[in-house]
Amino acid sequence: MSALSLHRPEENTAPAVPPELLHIDCGAHTAAVEALAAKLAATAVERDKRGGTALAERALIRQSGLLTLSVPRQYGGAGEAWPLIYRIVRRLAASDSSLAHLYGFQHLQIATILLFANPEQQQRYLSGTIEHNWFWGNATNALDGNIALQAVSDAAGEHYTLDGFKTFCSGALDSDMLNVSAPRGGDPANRIILTIPSRRAGVHANEDWDAIGQRQTDSGSVRFEQVRVEADEILGPPGPGGSPRATLRPCVSQLVLTEIYNGNALGALAAARAYTLEQARPWGSSGVARAAEDPFIQQRYGELWSKYRAAVSLTESAARTLQEAWDLGDAITPQQRGAAAVAIAEARVFAARTALEVTAQIFETMGARATASRWGFDRWWRNVRTHSLHDPLDYKLRDIGHWLLSGEPPLPSIYS
Amino acid sequence: MSALSLHRPEENTAPAVPPELLHIDCGAHTAAVEALAAKLAATAVERDKRGGTALAERALIRQSGLLTLSVPRQYGGAGEAWPLIYRIVRRLAASDSSLAHLYGFQHLQIATILLFANPEQQQRYLSGTIEHNWFWGNATNALDGNIALQAVSDAAGEHYTLDGFKTFCSGALDSDMLNVSAPRGGDPANRIILTIPSRRAGVHANEDWDAIGQRQTDSGSVRFEQVRVEADEILGPPGPGGSPRATLRPCVSQLVLTEIYNGNALGALAAARAYTLEQARPWGSSGVARAAEDPFIQQRYGELWSKYRAAVSLTESAARTLQEAWDLGDAITPQQRGAAAVAIAEARVFAARTALEVTAQIFETMGARATASRWGFDRWWRNVRTHSLHDPLDYKLRDIGHWLLSGEPPLPSIYS
Amino acid sequence: MSALSLHRPEENTAPAVPPELLHIDCGAHTAAVEALAAKLAATAVERDKRGGTALAERALIRQSGLLTLSVPRQYGGAGEAWPLIYRIVRRLAASDSSLAHLYGFQHLQIATILLFANPEQQQRYLSGTIEHNWFWGNATNALDGNIALQAVSDAAGEHYTLDGFKTFCSGALDSDMLNVSAPRGGDPANRIILTIPSRRAGVHANEDWDAIGQRQTDSGSVRFEQVRVEADEILGPPGPGGSPRATLRPCVSQLVLTEIYNGNALGALAAARAYTLEQARPWGSSGVARAAEDPFIQQRYGELWSKYRAAVSLTESAARTLQEAWDLGDAITPQQRGAAAVAIAEARVFAARTALEVTAQIFETMGARATASRWGFDRWWRNVRTHSLHDPLDYKLRDIGHWLLSGEPPLPSIYS
Amino acid sequence: MSALSLHRPEENTAPAVPPELLHIDCGAHTAAVEALAAKLAATAVERDKRGGTALAERALIRQSGLLTLSVPRQYGGAGEAWPLIYRIVRRLAASDSSLAHLYGFQHLQIATILLFANPEQQQRYLSGTIEHNWFWGNATNALDGNIALQAVSDAAGEHYTLDGFKTFCSGALDSDMLNVSAPRGGDPANRIILTIPSRRAGVHANEDWDAIGQRQTDSGSVRFEQVRVEADEILGPPGPGGSPRATLRPCVSQLVLTEIYNGNALGALAAARAYTLEQARPWGSSGVARAAEDPFIQQRYGELWSKYRAAVSLTESAARTLQEAWDLGDAITPQQRGAAAVAIAEARVFAARTALEVTAQIFETMGARATASRWGFDRWWRNVRTHSLHDPLDYKLRDIGHWLLSGEPPLPSIYS
Repeated sequence: MSALSLHRPEENTAPAVPPELLHIDCGAHTAAVEALAAKLAATAVERDKRGGTALAERALIRQSGLLTLSVPRQYGGAGEAWPLIYRIVRRLAASDSSLAHLYGFQHLQIATILLFANPEQQQRYLSGTIEHNWFWGNATNALDGNIALQAVSDAAGEHYTLDGFKTFCSGALDSDMLNVSAPRGGDPANRIILTIPSRRAGVHANEDWDAIGQRQTDSGSVRFEQVRVEADEILGPPGPGGSPRATLRPCVSQLVLTEIYNGNALGALAAARAYTLEQARPWGSSGVARAAEDPFIQQRYGELWSKYRAAVSLTESAARTLQEAWDLGDAITPQQRGAAAVAIAEARVFAARTALEVTAQIFETMGARATASRWGFDRWWRNVRTHSLHDPLDYKLRDIGHWLLSGEPPLPSIYS
Repeated sequence: MSALSLHRPEENTAPAVPPELLHIDCGAHTAAVEALAAKLAATAVERDKRGGTALAERALIRQSGLLTLSVPRQYGGAGEAWPLIYRIVRRLAASDSSLAHLYGFQHLQIATILLFANPEQQQRYLSGTIEHNWFWGNATNALDGNIALQAVSDAAGEHYTLDGFKTFCSGALDSDMLNVSAPRGGDPANRIILTIPSRRAGVHANEDWDAIGQRQTDSGSVRFEQVRVEADEILGPPGPGGSPRATLRPCVSQLVLTEIYNGNALGALAAARAYTLEQARPWGSSGVARAAEDPFIQQRYGELWSKYRAAVSLTESAARTLQEAWDLGDAITPQQRGAAAVAIAEARVFAARTALEVTAQIFETMGARATASRWGFDRWWRNVRTHSLHDPLDYKLRDIGHWLLSGEPPLPSIYS
Repeated sequence: MSALSLHRPEENTAPAVPPELLHIDCGAHTAAVEALAAKLAATAVERDKRGGTALAERALIRQSGLLTLSVPRQYGGAGEAWPLIYRIVRRLAASDSSLAHLYGFQHLQIATILLFANPEQQQRYLSGTIEHNWFWGNATNALDGNIALQAVSDAAGEHYTLDGFKTFCSGALDSDMLNVSAPRGGDPANRIILTIPSRRAGVHANEDWDAIGQRQTDSGSVRFEQVRVEADEILGPPGPGGSPRATLRPCVSQLVLTEIYNGNALGALAAARAYTLEQARPWGSSGVARAAEDPFIQQRYGELWSKYRAAVSLTESAARTLQEAWDLGDAITPQQRGAAAVAIAEARVFAARTALEVTAQIFETMGARATASRWGFDRWWRNVRTHSLHDPLDYKLRDIGHWLLSGEPPLPSIYS
Repeated sequence: MSALSLHRPEENTAPAVPPELLHIDCGAHTAAVEALAAKLAATAVERDKRGGTALAERALIRQSGLLTLSVPRQYGGAGEAWPLIYRIVRRLAASDSSLAHLYGFQHLQIATILLFANPEQQQRYLSGTIEHNWFWGNATNALDGNIALQAVSDAAGEHYTLDGFKTFCSGALDSDMLNVSAPRGGDPANRIILTIPSRRAGVHANEDWDAIGQRQTDSGSVRFEQVRVEADEILGPPGPGGSPRATLRPCVSQLVLTEIYNGNALGALAAARAYTLEQARPWGSSGVARAAEDPFIQQRYGELWSKYRAAVSLTESAARTLQEAWDLGDAITPQQRGAAAVAIAEARVFAARTALEVTAQIFETMGARATASRWGFDRWWRNVRTHSLHDPLDYKLRDIGHWLLSGEPPLPSIYS
């Protein structure tokens, strides 16, 4: 028997969260999103403790009908716009931050095909995504250095051979298709992105991700041993950086991160609210009969909720800006791309800082007994703390400040 | 000669602000808004020092064509929606916070007629507003207590007599029409709102406003000596509180305050930016040639700008919610009204806190010489500090928290 | 092989911390403290994951010669003053927050005897502590309610029988002696504190503590089944609340908490510093060769360190105030006791908030790879987050504010 | 009649502040300090509005017996230690920040003589200070550049001629003696400090200081026209930078700034407290009868007071460190000097940030009517905002962070 459950032995799982607080309008997909989120939530605390690959939950995503929403209609997809995709990421993150990350990165990989691939490749990979319901992974971390992974071409240039490894390969495990970045022939200035089936001979996704948060994103390493890559598996033209439009990829990526933060903040607030209403005791000198009537607790909810709402409003605005930039197609100018990048940077920094604050401070509304491990209330903070370090927020702020002062948008890179 | 201007004796006024930063899309009215804002900005620093009534600048507003934008088309007005009105308030506040307040409260008085007055009164006062280009003032502060102002009716109930005074009567001086609140016959539970010409015999608006900020809002006192009020000058039905729709008035009011904060934050950022670019010196150990290249200065601009943008996004979202509530007309339910009130409360608190932070921290990007009195860079903070105390933010937070926990929206009052 | 250790496979434990940063002058005991801290640090990360009772490490404390420092000289102890005891708590918490808590609560139990017990009891229990090197535990949580534990006396009043349970009994497991609180005969206003050997028949300390932080404090439950308590095991006179001096107990307790926060902040800063120097990579666009030269990283260390130093200065000042109050003996007035309580409340709130901030923000100085679970860098935050909820900080702030406004110190209670 | 005073027409000055809150133990000088502070407080609000030179109040300082406390006993002075001097600065700043600055800078000039002057000069200037009760000013700003002021020597090197100007010459007006810095012969690397009577022919202190805060520090410009300086008026050896000990001057200076911040925070809290108790109205929905019973107001006082207390504790600790460094005399090593500089930098940054927060947030405890100009409650913030820009706090933080990471203390300069 647990000391912390003595008074309520029946309460050994997280309290049910009032659904309305979590409700996010996802249009025609709302019911499917809610159903998936509910299934993920049911085991999220336990799986956070366990870590590792969430095979069953990845299967739930595959079965949800939501995996391919961003594939354009011409390839048989639903052609949903980015603001909707991001709302789904947020909603799923409020239940399960790791799986929401994998879901968001699925669409980042689809965006990668749309932005980097030539028409023939788009047809092949996007139709395939619809036909086979592919779950995509990535091995595109740019910080592993030149020696980590090499793409060496044969004399005729007809195929390449991959040798080496990559780290932070979110979603590679249990994936069907894999986007990979590598310097061509060891030249760091000549970075290519290529697409291969994840089960191709020589590709070894390792079960070695063990971080303090985002524990089921499988963001571990992939080892490549003499992996053959055909010439037409190298994405492009345009490939990465080949056009202003192609540089939208980090914009898509950064907003996935942003909505992970927002989703964790929302999930934390919803879980805390349920606890405050169902479990928390009024403090002795508060003079109130229920914790929910405590003026300091109400004040803190007001403060955290207002900040969360500001973060969501800013993110939604940035998502609309991204969609406008996306819809410009090849006509997009560097200045228009820069405006979107700045809007997204603003949202990312603000949402990250807000989510760190919200997920840390929810405890003040619940009290000491809420630190019992079985509630898993610290996972929200651990998720945000882990994910917000993806690339330094201070440099995002510098980019924004430099733009404000000079009018020069951030240089397109893998992070900005 | 001023010590602080020794090196740049020609720079004795605030540096020109790059217009693009301040640009806010006000639709068809953008040019008129920009022209008015520029004229107000030209003398804002000097008038902040002087205080008192800004007769010439009130005349500029009268001549701008912007005074009556919210009057519905059926009365000859432009029938502009609230989100546009608020954007204009924000833009004007970035140049002159006091005049922006008077402009915003003009539309609050028009809303008062729309919400409280009967059809005949609406026709009379709104058509009159268009015909005579009336500038409205108010004497509706609820905190003066019962004894401050009395409305006594004659035996036949055909007219009333006002005796007493009101404080915080923003815009009463130099106004044409005046909305006044009073307890009927000394009954605090029976509060009426009435409309009279500001120049009616016995109405004395005093030049006694002298606060640390918002120095030209004329928010001083009005004394009423045996002022005759006709029965049909009492607004209603429905009057205040007579319908859920009528309770939207504080929502309109609170968003005016909110945009005053946002406008001051924007004005402060724009003024600081110009100073950083044109006046600030790089710090000795920074290793950069220009202050604008200082990483800490860029970082701070990034931080302040991101927060400002979050405040504006949240406020724009709240303004859309208000408009939706407004458009429901008499069909609005208390719950729908409550949702709007909560959204607006979130925006008000967040924008106030953000503007306090922004207007205080701009100095870090400019350095010691920017404290010279002639720049007037402290006026942004003084304006926000003054205006954000209108009603306590902590109680707004409690309202939001209580709603989050209980689902009960704030009780409609003059402040919520 | 771990993805996160690919580049530095040899680095699979926390980096060695430069000792000078952690150095705290503990007078003649410095060497013993440092030796104990080093031994605790060696396994702290692993034990944080494991949780449960730290039998080996409790043995280390027993063997350190530091267990009984606060026992007055007249009973054979070292008679060390509170400021020194607290410095040791801080230093140990920088290595192992759970064991530091048990060490601090050891001295709280000794203080309990000194404040509540009659001379004969003091002689018995304090001499016994020196003679047997007793490790003390407690079962004194006041929030379990009346029904949780009952002390029923026999007809003659010669002994009592304990039945029921207590929660949050830090240090009861593996303890030698136990202080227990209970309402006498079910009367909540008649709370007694009694002292019994932990191994007395019917006392069952449960291994049921499993919280997100402070994972080896054994703050689980104790069940009492027909436990016989002799009349002279009831502490007093004065007992709890029997004299102004007796009300110093929560002051002693609150400063233990405070130094736990400070110690975690220090430990986090020292661990992060070592990582920044030894592991962190410079960010691509930083233009510096080493992370330690990054201006934003330096700035953040400057900020976190300054706040930590402020917290320690305030806490040291509060500890001196406590010692002065302690030295007044029975002559202490309620006002003098109140002044000490306010000074301690200030330190507790400030140190808690500071440590939450420091332990969360160290990650910004290290980067994404520092989230690898094996470093255990999140344990500092989890410890502080858990322990800072002991009693609500907002009510501490209210107490301080009420005192500032009214001159009335907080009412002595188990928390203030 | 003022609108804001309608209900309390008799209250047209700041409410009396309870003396105990402001009480700071200044040893044998406590009564003199309190008497001087009370006289300064009586007119501080009015003089803040007026600006200019506070001749009468400078006379009060001269008459207080406190002007020369830091002159060593061997020259006839009281030989008081730095911690006491700083406490007096803090106490005076709680009443009048400008005059406290002048008082603190008096002792900085005395320190300048003690640190830079040769024995004969020390005898001359320190004995003269006692004999004539000299009030010292300075013209030592380092940021005016080379061309601003030139010290040209004649062929024989027997005297120098000063030509040019200096800015930010706090306290030069109405001073008796003046410390001046200049590059010798236009060589920026060869900076000298010299001492001359303020009324020497050719010295013109201008009444041109007009900043948003610190309005009576006379920190305007001084023009030097063919001012003759004798060779033995050049301070040294050692002169500035001539010895590790000589580099303590900026340490002394930075702690003066620090205590100005602390004093303003204290003054703001004391003034707000009096207003809350005497003037503030309870908020309608608070449910309490007096503003002082409002839980949010109590909470905020608790928060602001705790932070103020942390700032003072850290500053007092830094002052002790400075005194220890000072007492080392010529034996001080660069590392010891560096430790003092870091401790002082920590205090300066923390106190500045705290005072900015405290002086801004006191308004939340008072309400809208407290913004009436006649209370002058904004002057605390304006003072701190102005003075905290003396040199950038972000670079102080970087210095601290660099030291923490590298062990290298900040390079001695005029600011560090």
